[in-house]
Amino acid sequence: RIRTGGGMQGILYASPISTCSRRVMCVLQEVGADWALKPIDLGKGQQKSAEMLAIQPYGKVPAWHGADGFMLFESRAIMQYAAQGSDLVPVSNTERAIMDQWISVEYSYFAPDFLQIYYMKVLKKVSLDEMKIQAHRTALEKTLDLLEGRLTSSGLPYLACAAFTLADLTYMCYFAQFGACELLDTLDDRPALAAWWARCAGRPSWEYIMANRMCEERIAKE
Amino acid sequence: RIRTGGGMQGILYASPISTCSRRVMCVLQEVGADWALKPIDLGKGQQKSAEMLAIQPYGKVPAWHGADGFMLFESRAIMQYAAQGSDLVPVSNTERAIMDQWISVEYSYFAPDFLQIYYMKVLKKVSLDEMKIQAHRTALEKTLDLLEGRLTSSGLPYLACAAFTLADLTYMCYFAQFGACELLDTLDDRPALAAWWARCAGRPSWEYIMANRMCEERIAKE
Repeated sequence: RIRTGGGMQGILYASPISTCSRRVMCVLQEVGADWALKPIDLGKGQQKSAEMLAIQPYGKVPAWHGADGFMLFESRAIMQYAAQGSDLVPVSNTERAIMDQWISVEYSYFAPDFLQIYYMKVLKKVSLDEMKIQAHRTALEKTLDLLEGRLTSSGLPYLACAAFTLADLTYMCYFAQFGACELLDTLDDRPALAAWWARCAGRPSWEYIMANRMCEERIAKE
Repeated sequence: RIRTGGGMQGILYASPISTCSRRVMCVLQEVGADWALKPIDLGKGQQKSAEMLAIQPYGKVPAWHGADGFMLFESRAIMQYAAQGSDLVPVSNTERAIMDQWISVEYSYFAPDFLQIYYMKVLKKVSLDEMKIQAHRTALEKTLDLLEGRLTSSGLPYLACAAFTLADLTYMCYFAQFGACELLDTLDDRPALAAWWARCAGRPSWEYIMANRMCEERIAKE
């Protein structure tokens, strides 16, 4: 199969530490794109600069500016774009549909609860409220149960099919924060999910994105 | 091009009046699927029945049960599944990416603000607060400006390309409620968007979904 990403070339405007940015950077690595990083410092509000608003009108990261002039925002759209035709997207219609279903579950159910915990415990954007954290954790555990159930009943190593796809990739940026969010114990009773996470976290693309040298090596020359 | 949906056969568990259900029903009509409707009465809580939870574990609608046994939930995943290979999805990688971007904008920015207004004004799920409605309306208008800008600068009749795609379709269930939400005047200063909406609302697939006879004709035989 042809990896379209192999021919992709451009600049990703992103924060190396933001969850949505990491999702896209990991796809770019997986497909072998020729990409440079334009780091955006969210703490300094650089995402609201005139330059950024011209390519991401809501003032968020990431945004893609291809060498061919093509511009795109929304991490989940960039992720699908970069992965088109690559091994990250199943050829089978039903496997692709299952992939899209778990991506939608991430957006509809997983992220809303996870991010509230993350905002309180890690980013401190929201004041700490242990009652609320407990409620979000309970809601999150329902989705963790479904992920565990999917992996167990299918007997597959990954969520959509036998291969690693965007469905797995889209959750990685959150699981990487489970320690900081004091959620690691949720994996104790979910062995299939714990094994899946170890499998995902060990991918070279992900290890690279999380390494300090990534930023130095990928930074766009002015 | 092959319309994969033309060979699709199955039952959609859905509420004929729910926005997310209408999105999928419209796709099924557009692709010429052979589908039956299993109406789920949200007022009676039928979405939480054991039968429903077996195919939609979060207790929501819609959910798809194919004649081939394939089950799928999440309206945006079913929409993409039903539309795969049809005219609703552009062949061009960049046009498809633009489509996905506007679909993501719907989910990330449009729906959160629109739905709060809809819950207060129409469903009465949330108590009416005119200050909050105004704030959501202002936020929504930013996205309406972007949609207007996209249609104007591209000169195209639809959001992603010259053809009607999932990007247009995914917004229709909300625009159909603009009257009830007292938002119709937002189209007065946005002529391209107003023309786009008239174009979309006039599609036979949409008119059928909104017609009373649809339910009678499509209802699944027990």
